[in-house]
Amino acid sequence: MNSDDWLLLERRVRFGDCDSAGVLHFHNLLRWAHEAWEESIENYGISSCKIFPFSESQQKIAIPIINCEARFFCPIKLGDHLNMKIMPKKINNNLFKVEILFFKEKMKCAQSTLIHCSIDSNSRQKKSIPEELQLWIEASNLNNKINQC
Amino acid sequence: MNSDDWLLLERRVRFGDCDSAGVLHFHNLLRWAHEAWEESIENYGISSCKIFPFSESQQKIAIPIINCEARFFCPIKLGDHLNMKIMPKKINNNLFKVEILFFKEKMKCAQSTLIHCSIDSNSRQKKSIPEELQLWIEASNLNNKINQC
Amino acid sequence: MNSDDWLLLERRVRFGDCDSAGVLHFHNLLRWAHEAWEESIENYGISSCKIFPFSESQQKIAIPIINCEARFFCPIKLGDHLNMKIMPKKINNNLFKVEILFFKEKMKCAQSTLIHCSIDSNSRQKKSIPEELQLWIEASNLNNKINQC
Amino acid sequence: MNSDDWLLLERRVRFGDCDSAGVLHFHNLLRWAHEAWEESIENYGISSCKIFPFSESQQKIAIPIINCEARFFCPIKLGDHLNMKIMPKKINNNLFKVEILFFKEKMKCAQSTLIHCSIDSNSRQKKSIPEELQLWIEASNLNNKINQC
Repeated sequence: MNSDDWLLLERRVRFGDCDSAGVLHFHNLLRWAHEAWEESIENYGISSCKIFPFSESQQKIAIPIINCEARFFCPIKLGDHLNMKIMPKKINNNLFKVEILFFKEKMKCAQSTLIHCSIDSNSRQKKSIPEELQLWIEASNLNNKINQC
Repeated sequence: MNSDDWLLLERRVRFGDCDSAGVLHFHNLLRWAHEAWEESIENYGISSCKIFPFSESQQKIAIPIINCEARFFCPIKLGDHLNMKIMPKKINNNLFKVEILFFKEKMKCAQSTLIHCSIDSNSRQKKSIPEELQLWIEASNLNNKINQC
Repeated sequence: MNSDDWLLLERRVRFGDCDSAGVLHFHNLLRWAHEAWEESIENYGISSCKIFPFSESQQKIAIPIINCEARFFCPIKLGDHLNMKIMPKKINNNLFKVEILFFKEKMKCAQSTLIHCSIDSNSRQKKSIPEELQLWIEASNLNNKINQC
Repeated sequence: MNSDDWLLLERRVRFGDCDSAGVLHFHNLLRWAHEAWEESIENYGISSCKIFPFSESQQKIAIPIINCEARFFCPIKLGDHLNMKIMPKKINNNLFKVEILFFKEKMKCAQSTLIHCSIDSNSRQKKSIPEELQLWIEASNLNNKINQC
């Protein structure tokens, strides 16, 4: 599988994403960041239903976000075509982060970081990151390293 | 209890609610409509956790929206202070609608309608509207009638 | 150009689109409806900056939504892959509607209608629908008719 | 004026704010953070139309967010009643940050930081923070200090 399929994604800025100043309303970037890594694990071959808990599932592991950050380097406007580079990283057995770089015509215009904690969804005790997510993180790291060579 | 506490609510238009045209981005009105009737039942004295299903609950009844509509009569802008009049109505044993009128300085500027269907959240078979919701609907009808006298 | 490129679009349901009941939170369907017709006109070859007003533009025509509606026929869940069929229609010189059918594995699961009014963005007087939008509407009608043969 | 009116605000967690895991979907906290400081300046007596640019205004200063961050300390759930403490701070002539602490029954459950940069909305050159915003920041600092005594 080509890493471009799951580590390099695209997004077009839509009318409703922007505010009265005519630029992306800031918190939408974080919505995109979450949707991007969902798309990434899906393209890698993991069903989102295996990762994200919902009412009908027997899912015991939840992975809530404990920290999120976004930085903006230049205005993102209606109709802009953005390229996104997904960079997940394991922090320890329970924590991982997903960093995303946003490019507009090869210029970095924004950056986001989500830090997730893996917990038991009932007891809310820390748990190991689900194995499938670990595989996705490792494969991503390997691919991002190769691309830097 | 004064019906003004649960049938007449208020909302201020915020920066992020508006789009690049400088007016409310349309679908936010429907978000407000849902938040308004949540506030209404809460002010009436029903806990939202009793009505809305979520992961930890044993809630067996769900009330998904099967139809929603919004109509706009004049532009709604940043900083506008809106008054909302909540008008729920029972359609039959399983269906009810929540109509909301939005006023800007006593002029009607928008209107929304949500139609909910009461179902068993597992089998998705139709169920009677939860008793607490029925009480809220009846009390609202009575109050709205009195106010029209 | 193949009409499939601009009249048949796709969408994946993401984690943040869903609510505590585990299904699509209703007003997101209307957000998708707007994003879908933006994608449609873009794929047809019209730049969104020509259609949608924003702070830096000299755009004189705005096309606010005066009516929107959504109907749901079956639950839309996390990870669902939806197909969307875009059907714009001219109502009169100032009004047009964009109807969208949402399918899940060939079963219609939802439907949305947006009605737009073409106005002068300063005076807010009615104006003819912009010519480029009219071309897109006509081309869409022609293609949808051919596909029905 | 009592500082409680503009530095201590409240928010109720609504159904549509939460995701399939039954807790607040993370980026909504940042939407709340922006709405909270809009409410704060309004309660302090500054019209939002003076601060935020929109299509009809002659506003020359924009204050885009260049950095935002949120940290979560415990799950925020449907129906939770949150108290928010607003703490703005001037960084230099062009930059200011708005920090918000979110409390649930006196326990800190989340924290957000928005950093705004004051620019000319056309040239996008750095500009001094608008005078009215500076007054609000200074008054807030004074009040927060007094409350700590």
